[in-house]
This record gives sequence, structure tokens and C-alpha cells, in this order.
Amino acid sequence: MLIVQKYGGTSVGTLERIEAVAQRVAKTKEAGNDVVVVVSAMSGETNKLIEYAEYFSKTPKQREMDMLLSSGERVTSALLAIALNEMGYPAIAMSGRQAGIETDLAHTKARIENIDRTQIESKLQEGNIVVVAGFQGITREGDVSTLGRGGSDLSAVAIAGALEADLCEIYTDVDGVYTTDPRIEPKAKKLDKISYDEMLELASLGAKVLQTRSVEMAKKLNVNLVTRSSFNDNEGTLITKEENIMEQPVVSGVALDRNQARVTLRGVTDKPGIAAEIFRKLADNNINVDMIIQNVGHDGTTNLGFTVPQNELEIAKKAMSEIKASESVEYDSDIVKVSIVGVGMKSHSGVACKAFDTLAHEGINLEMISTSEIKISMVIAAKYGELAVRALHSAYGLHQ
Amino acid sequence: MLIVQKYGGTSVGTLERIEAVAQRVAKTKEAGNDVVVVVSAMSGETNKLIEYAEYFSKTPKQREMDMLLSSGERVTSALLAIALNEMGYPAIAMSGRQAGIETDLAHTKARIENIDRTQIESKLQEGNIVVVAGFQGITREGDVSTLGRGGSDLSAVAIAGALEADLCEIYTDVDGVYTTDPRIEPKAKKLDKISYDEMLELASLGAKVLQTRSVEMAKKLNVNLVTRSSFNDNEGTLITKEENIMEQPVVSGVALDRNQARVTLRGVTDKPGIAAEIFRKLADNNINVDMIIQNVGHDGTTNLGFTVPQNELEIAKKAMSEIKASESVEYDSDIVKVSIVGVGMKSHSGVACKAFDTLAHEGINLEMISTSEIKISMVIAAKYGELAVRALHSAYGLHQ
Repeated sequence: MLIVQKYGGTSVGTLERIEAVAQRVAKTKEAGNDVVVVVSAMSGETNKLIEYAEYFSKTPKQREMDMLLSSGERVTSALLAIALNEMGYPAIAMSGRQAGIETDLAHTKARIENIDRTQIESKLQEGNIVVVAGFQGITREGDVSTLGRGGSDLSAVAIAGALEADLCEIYTDVDGVYTTDPRIEPKAKKLDKISYDEMLELASLGAKVLQTRSVEMAKKLNVNLVTRSSFNDNEGTLITKEENIMEQPVVSGVALDRNQARVTLRGVTDKPGIAAEIFRKLADNNINVDMIIQNVGHDGTTNLGFTVPQNELEIAKKAMSEIKASESVEYDSDIVKVSIVGVGMKSHSGVACKAFDTLAHEGINLEMISTSEIKISMVIAAKYGELAVRALHSAYGLHQ
Repeated sequence: MLIVQKYGGTSVGTLERIEAVAQRVAKTKEAGNDVVVVVSAMSGETNKLIEYAEYFSKTPKQREMDMLLSSGERVTSALLAIALNEMGYPAIAMSGRQAGIETDLAHTKARIENIDRTQIESKLQEGNIVVVAGFQGITREGDVSTLGRGGSDLSAVAIAGALEADLCEIYTDVDGVYTTDPRIEPKAKKLDKISYDEMLELASLGAKVLQTRSVEMAKKLNVNLVTRSSFNDNEGTLITKEENIMEQPVVSGVALDRNQARVTLRGVTDKPGIAAEIFRKLADNNINVDMIIQNVGHDGTTNLGFTVPQNELEIAKKAMSEIKASESVEYDSDIVKVSIVGVGMKSHSGVACKAFDTLAHEGINLEMISTSEIKISMVIAAKYGELAVRALHSAYGLHQ
């Protein structure tokens, strides 16, 4: 097999940890696999460099930031290659440029445009373990670029896609994807498999195991992604296409998003395009609107409700104060969003019904509801968040 | 003018120091010059990375060491460019690769083969200050290479040569080149100018301001080199070709080399090629032989004496024990080498005579003498080292 392994900052946070990673990589090679390793900077390094830059400027040039920030991953890749060579496993360290990662010109948040796999393939064929500095690439102008938050995951997935690797393992400090947050529901179970779409919903709902961009790319490139811990030998969770999962559970997971605030506009002015005006105003202020609900009030006027991230509520308030769109505006930051996600919903009826029943049975009032093909999200009072998660987790039999 | 400035590790050792360097660079730009800056890693960084590597391996792969060690200079170049941009001076950070520094394949001690000046020139023409990560280049295989000890100086001189810069300023924590070590002779004076050849002799004699390789390259490329301090505004010392120095002093400086040991072979076996055998043996052991003196003893047998670096004496002893070349071998590590250097010697007679007289007058016995066109070196008992330096410094009027 050809396996791409990616180790995050905590997995390579100390020299001892890098040594442990080297042993894991060696074991994978020893099992007869070809191995490409993608590494992050040692934890703390990138933040240190950002602080250095901020000493000089609050708005440093992004091209120079990329030159600065890309150095941490290069250090880790060299150290891991040195460790592997010492253990008798020929290894080659490569920068993003050497690994053929070509990006657009958007410094500090570049998008991968192409992977030239020539160099990696040739080094693999010579029997080497290839250790790639994650998070970075090169623009067509020859400058170093970085890929933004979660960039090393993206590097790994893109390389796995380009090489048509059998597996792309993302190592972090958690065991995999759980049916819900174990800190809320101790009976939460680690999932063996989950589909890309479910993972995308869970990632966007705040399960911090993987970032949305990486899962989207894995889906697009058809990369079998495994998320697992570098601190133990547990199996992890495979994220793959729906067809690869034999038996789809109706619901795969329950997610709780605490970073939600609700805006309600009552008596919205009755003129065409008023909703467009409201949401353009929010977009202009870079506010990410999540759920939107419009309904007609009992007196015939229109009410419009939406949720925004809690930390963007103040900007939203300011934006709303600048337009006259309704009789009154109410804000409520004392809410949470609880969601159930599952590909199985597509072919099962009554899933939503059970969710509503479950919460009603606990005396929890639903303030907003929004559904997609594989997700049901409900806004409820913040104080009921954990209770709702446990109740839903149990109702769908996720602890079994 | 086009000026290349190089700042060493202590000059960029802290964020405050980098800020001070930015101000100095800005001042140079403000004076109407085009400026290329070459920077070292922040002091301590390179040693830290070496320690990291040594945690994993006593003999790390050199290709990987270069990837590792080159990161420190990249960080400094990015930070300095960020600082300059913030001050309103457009600046571009460049790695060795981006600056077009092409080297051979000898990782960790690569030699510069060519400078492709296209990128630097184009960025200068756009009005930028160009900040180059020193110490590094790229091989024709596309791998990062480093240039060994003093590598950033080499980067600066090579770039100055390629760009035909008017001046290459090497900033360190000392004011320039002195007539002798001020810790030995407080009356030592800073030289305004010195020729390449004199500087080469002084560098090889242990004046640690500049390394031999950089001076050799400056001479070859006809680069006007200035060594000065980044901690004050003193003028520094210009190292240039002899023709540029109007009035040549007979003697420019007095150097003391304490890292010397003497080997004396008495009654050397009388057969052809025996000297060649001795020195081949030493070369095979990578011992740098400095002075060599052969003379015929009073009984007709041959005596052979030479000096080696004191820290290589034990290897030399072992090497000598492996061949039977003489009746006896004596070792003396209680010696020093004191040298006077001056281009003016070429056209002045009696220079050596005055040196011998001076030392004789102080009761110092000469154990070995070796001369070149612009240098006289004398081996004496270690205890007389400082006295000899002061006496010679005074005899040649260097304090005036």
C-alpha cells in the first residue's frame, strides 16, 4: 500500500514526540508500505513566529509572513528525516516546493492548484520515506505560500490524491470521530467509519477533528481519510465515500454548537428585496449567517430570524442598526444549536419526528429548526444543550 | 550607490536588534542608495537546531541538515522585511534560491557556482530593499544547500560581486580590523584600509573579523569590503585591492596564534621520499600542517620540524607513532606563533631584521621562523606571546 501520514503540531511537539513519530513511520514502512509523511511545525513554533512578526507590524506583508511561517514545518521535516535515517530507514525531507505543491497567489491562505508528483514518486521509487513540510507550497512566481489554518491536513490530502494513495492518515491527539463530544456524553462511541458528507456536517458543526476544507478535498479527490491518535495504537475513524460503508446507521452523530446567537427581526418592512438587503449588509461585514427562518406572524406581518456566530454578534448588531428593515430587532445569545447528522436519514422517514419527540419529552422548546438531506439542526435555550445531546444520543441508540 | 549589507547573528540576535538593523538599512536607503541586505540567523538559533539534530543522530544526513539549518536565516529575512515595510520602505524577503544563489552538491559546505542576479535586480528596480537569507543556496538538483561557517559573509560578497555593487558592508559586533588584538595591546588602532592579501594573512592567523573564504572571494570578484559594527556608527575598515590604498604602511598588523603545537623529528631516516611519507600520513589524518622547517643537524643527520594546530596534536602523535621516520620525535605544545603582516614589506628591506632585533632585545628566543612576501611568522615560547606582540606593535609604530 501507499500510505500518506500527517502528524500535527502536538504529535511533533517535542524531540521525544518526533522520535515516537519516527518509530510509527518506520513500523508502517516495515509492514511493506510506501510512506509519505506530512508534518506540521512543532506546537508553539508558528505562534512564536506570529508574535515575532507582530512585534514589528500589526499588518505584516503576507508574502513575507509566508516566508516566515513556512520555516517551522521545514525544521520538523528535516528532523524527522534525520531520525528515520538514523534508524536505518532512508528518508528524504522536502519543502512544499520540492514536493511539487503549486498554489495560487493568495499568500497566507493559498489554494492548491496542482501537485507535481514527479519528485515524490522518484524518491519513493528509490526506496525512501518522503517527509514533506506541510502547510506550504510555491506560487507560479516562485514565492513560498502557506495554506492557512489546517494547511498541513490539506497538504496531506492533496498529496494522497495526486499519488492515488491507498490511505491518508491524519494523526492528532484525539482517537477519531465520536458519536458526540465525550465530555458531554461519556457513553459516546468512536465511529469506525463515516461518510464525507456526514463528516462535513460534523466539521462545520464544531467537531474539531478535521477542518471542512480537508474533508471537501478528500471527497473531491476520493481520498480515504483516517483520523487517529499518535499517542496510542487505536484504530481511528475512516472517512470515505458512502458506497464504502456497508451498513449506514440512520444517525451517525450528535453535535452541539455553543457559538450561536439569534437575531429576530419582527415586522419586517414589506417591500421587495428587503431580505436581500439585510443579508448583503451582513455579508459586507463578513458575518457568517447560519440558519435563516422566515415566517408570517399572526397579524400578517413578516418575521425574519437568523443565527450568527456569537463572537460576531456585536458586528451584526452594528450592521442591523445601519439599516431600517423592521419594526424591532431582538438579539439572543443565550442559545445553542444541537444537530443530528446521518446519511441514513435520506432513506428513513420519521427521523426528525423522533428528535422533536425526544426534546419535547425533556420539556425542551424548539426555537428554530433547519434541515438538510443528512442533518437536522435545532436551536434551543443554552441551558438545555447538554441534556438535549444526551437525550438524542440515547434516542438514536448511538451508545450501542 | 548600490550597497550590500550583511548583518551577523549578534546584530540580529533579538527583535530589538532587528529593529535597529531596519533603521540602519532605512538610513542607507534614505541616503539615495539601492540596498541589498544579507542576514544570518538570530544568534543561538543555528546552534539550537544543531542540538535538535544531534538528539537524533551524531551523523545526520547532510542534505537534511541543510534543510534544517537554512530555516533560521529565512526567519530573519522575513522579519527584517516586515520591519522595513512597516517603516514605509518596500522590502522583499528572499531565500537563497530566490536570490539565485546556485551551489555545487557539497551539502553543509557547498561552494557558490553561480549567482543568477535576475530576481534581485528586478526587485531592486521596482524600488524594493531586497533582504536575502544568507548562508544558503540551491543545488542543481533543486535541494537547499548551506555554505558552511561564515556562509552569510560569502552570500553577501558573492551577491555584491554579481551585482557589481559599490560596497559590501559586513556588520558584526566589532569595529573593524585592528593593528593587533586590543585585549593584548590596548594601544591597538583600528585600520582604515587594508589590502585583501594582508587581510587574508591576518584572517588565517586568527583575527576573527572575517573568514578567509570571504576575503578570497572579495579579492577574486574585486568587491570593496567594509567590516564595521552594527552597534555604533564608527567607520569600520575597508578591505580593498592594493592599488586603492595610497600609502602602504610597512607593517599593518601583528597577530598572535595560540593554537599551535610543534613537532620535531630528530635524525630523520635518510631515504628518498621520507618527508613525503610523513606529510602524506598527516594529510590522511586531516591534520593541517602550518610551518615546516628542515635543517641538517651538526652531526650530518636531518632534523624536521613542523607545527600543527594544538587541538590536532593528539592525532598527530598517533599518526607519527604509526610510521618509523626518525630516531626520535619531540612534541611541544607550549608555544605560540606571532606574525607581522604588511604589503609594504615587499618594497622595504630590513623588516624581518627589525622583528628579530625587537624580540632579541626582550630576551625572547626564536624557535622557528617562516616568511612569505607579506608576512613574517615566528614561533616562540608561549609565555612570551603577549610581550612579543606589544614589543612588535611598538617597534613598527602601529600605535601612532
